[in-house]
Amino acid sequence: MSLPLSRKMHLVAYLKTGPTALHPGGWRHPEARLDDILEPARYEHIARVLEDACFDGCFFADLQGLYDIHKGGFETYVQQGGQISFLDPMTVLPIMARATSRLGLGATLSTTLLNPYHIARSLLSLDVLSKGRVAWNVVTSATELEAQNYGLEALPPKDTRYDHADEVVEACLKLWKSWDPDAFVLDKARGIFADPSRVHYANYAGRTVRTRGPLSIPQSAQGHPVLMQAGASDRGREFAARWAEVIFAAQRGIADMTAFRADIHARMARYGRAPGDTAILVQTTCIVGETDAIAQEKAEFVNALIEDELALASTSSSVGVDMSRYREGEALEKLMGNQGMAGSLQLVEQAQRDEKISVTEAAKRRQPNLIVGAPATVADRMEEMFRAGACDGFVLTPVTHPSSHEAFARSVVPELQRRGLMRTHYRTSTLREHLRDAG
Amino acid sequence: MSLPLSRKMHLVAYLKTGPTALHPGGWRHPEARLDDILEPARYEHIARVLEDACFDGCFFADLQGLYDIHKGGFETYVQQGGQISFLDPMTVLPIMARATSRLGLGATLSTTLLNPYHIARSLLSLDVLSKGRVAWNVVTSATELEAQNYGLEALPPKDTRYDHADEVVEACLKLWKSWDPDAFVLDKARGIFADPSRVHYANYAGRTVRTRGPLSIPQSAQGHPVLMQAGASDRGREFAARWAEVIFAAQRGIADMTAFRADIHARMARYGRAPGDTAILVQTTCIVGETDAIAQEKAEFVNALIEDELALASTSSSVGVDMSRYREGEALEKLMGNQGMAGSLQLVEQAQRDEKISVTEAAKRRQPNLIVGAPATVADRMEEMFRAGACDGFVLTPVTHPSSHEAFARSVVPELQRRGLMRTHYRTSTLREHLRDAG
Repeated sequence: MSLPLSRKMHLVAYLKTGPTALHPGGWRHPEARLDDILEPARYEHIARVLEDACFDGCFFADLQGLYDIHKGGFETYVQQGGQISFLDPMTVLPIMARATSRLGLGATLSTTLLNPYHIARSLLSLDVLSKGRVAWNVVTSATELEAQNYGLEALPPKDTRYDHADEVVEACLKLWKSWDPDAFVLDKARGIFADPSRVHYANYAGRTVRTRGPLSIPQSAQGHPVLMQAGASDRGREFAARWAEVIFAAQRGIADMTAFRADIHARMARYGRAPGDTAILVQTTCIVGETDAIAQEKAEFVNALIEDELALASTSSSVGVDMSRYREGEALEKLMGNQGMAGSLQLVEQAQRDEKISVTEAAKRRQPNLIVGAPATVADRMEEMFRAGACDGFVLTPVTHPSSHEAFARSVVPELQRRGLMRTHYRTSTLREHLRDAG
Repeated sequence: MSLPLSRKMHLVAYLKTGPTALHPGGWRHPEARLDDILEPARYEHIARVLEDACFDGCFFADLQGLYDIHKGGFETYVQQGGQISFLDPMTVLPIMARATSRLGLGATLSTTLLNPYHIARSLLSLDVLSKGRVAWNVVTSATELEAQNYGLEALPPKDTRYDHADEVVEACLKLWKSWDPDAFVLDKARGIFADPSRVHYANYAGRTVRTRGPLSIPQSAQGHPVLMQAGASDRGREFAARWAEVIFAAQRGIADMTAFRADIHARMARYGRAPGDTAILVQTTCIVGETDAIAQEKAEFVNALIEDELALASTSSSVGVDMSRYREGEALEKLMGNQGMAGSLQLVEQAQRDEKISVTEAAKRRQPNLIVGAPATVADRMEEMFRAGACDGFVLTPVTHPSSHEAFARSVVPELQRRGLMRTHYRTSTLREHLRDAG
């Protein structure tokens, strides 16, 4: 854990098994594919595009349900095509693993909803099958609707969720060391399959998590899955500082990003971790065109496809507040209960503050860092943020599928490679190695 | 559900993500592959072999842990190569789905350990990705070790587990109807993605299961996954009679199988179900050779590879009793507590009764119906069982991987096809259709 991060950018693609990743008008774009949302080929294709472009990895944002916070129903989301995860990403990722050999593969799994033994087992299994390319985006779940789907009385308070998440991660880390890498013997003649002295119980007993083990899976090529996290609240940052090897940040602008990064590094020091032990990636949406002017027109075109109601419903979903009841001028923070993500709230507030716009307008511009321009312009902005120390790389959120990631891969990636800011080929095999590759 | 079953045999292959399916000496056979247990190619290969042979499907037996009932530890299992599920079958099955287009794909998921919403979501997702080829082998889990891995105080009593399982199945069936098949609109111009009036809450509230829904997955090509079950106890049979579309039976011999089948049919009638609504498949192990004599020698060879201790440990695992403490002559049933599977106990008792052998010997011959012979001999025995009305088909348990299923596919399947007892090509697409294909 002590090697310094390379000063090449790390790139991770944001994906979703539905029409809308983040931009709620993208699915209406003429180039957007809708006919293959339920087809394995859709996910194989995007995995190959990203691997050809030498991305560190990709990950699926996810929800264990259908958002129905806005107006107390799912009508807006279903009718207008909101952020719906149609397929369980854990059934799609094995297919993507088989279609690639280097690309990192991230799954979002909830410590509040799923059992630690199940989490440890399914992720390490995929990590072994993919030869060490899996990441776990650790979430604690932030909606009552997911809690109700899982039969809970109510969503536990945020601090309780994170305390439990700490124990879930500890338990997984113990379970992931059940089988030493050299446990297999495979001696048919003597009838010795493996060495029992190299297999270990976990015997984890925390306050809210108990598991005995062993897990019946050997360690993977990267030992165990990479831990990712995206918490923006104080408690979320503390969790990230303690555990995360990849952090998704949603700050806007270099000043806020730099402050976030410094805050995380200071917190990490208290856990004995060096800044290089985690890669802080900033959520960014790029709209690329042949020229800056064309890119601007493309951005205007696709933004015009956003319905006000769906934009607001998306904000309802991520902030955890029914925004149809919001009156302009109210303090959003006061409306927030136990639901919702602090990072999303901060984004809306930042947009309102910086741009003096209505909440509906802010909702429509919720892409945290929007970069619009010709390939060189996009590369300039990314280089500027990167060299300023605002981040270790980017989480790229697409507008249209698959063309956003395709366009970026074909036009911006070569530009970043020419500037020496990105790898031109994989020199390493596992995701953890990619993240630490210095070259 | 009212079409009669065809009088063609239905064949399902038993699989495991480890060295031993059921025969504990098989992994030591010269032809057994061990180097690829953790490789996707192993599972793609066997899926293609089975699909080429027109099997209805395959399924993975599974355990959420490492058996350590025998002598209170996992030493025998690890050292001698017992029934260990190294990979989570749910990460392997998507890869097998992608490598095939007709083969049914069965997963074993526990209603006691996993949340109903998770079960419904992961299985329907795979069912959609595979275009309607998934089966759910419903188990309630029968070991304290699994309960401890999942942090439970203790394994709930069997009746409690089955009562809960009834509610889990009911909840899944409701969740699986969340999206009508015609819910999608995909109208980019009008900005209408889907029709909200065709999406439904589950609102399931039982005594021990609650879930709200909707699930964000549309119905699959076969509607929802096929339900499979293998309970042999009175409560298990009742559950199977109520829900199962495929039943795995482990009775030995035509008389016991026929009685079992009649019992299930009588129980089904009380739920308003016709005999043709379920396919009762009998666990069978076939050892095929060029001649009967060669097959016999092959059987002797592979049976000589079984270590007494591992055979006994396997029985400990399935019966849920530490057999190292068993004294010959004791009534096994008296040793059984809440753990263990009634069907396994019955098998050992049957073997002891019918063949007047020791428990260790019975443990070594635990394959429920062993057929040894030339292809025509094996086909004769299968045809005899089938025509006698003892079963609707077979669950074939391999001795060696992949050669057992390969040998059966290449030599016995053509013989069964010549006799008109098996399909020669798939006339149907989904697993539920295969099971109801009359031709």
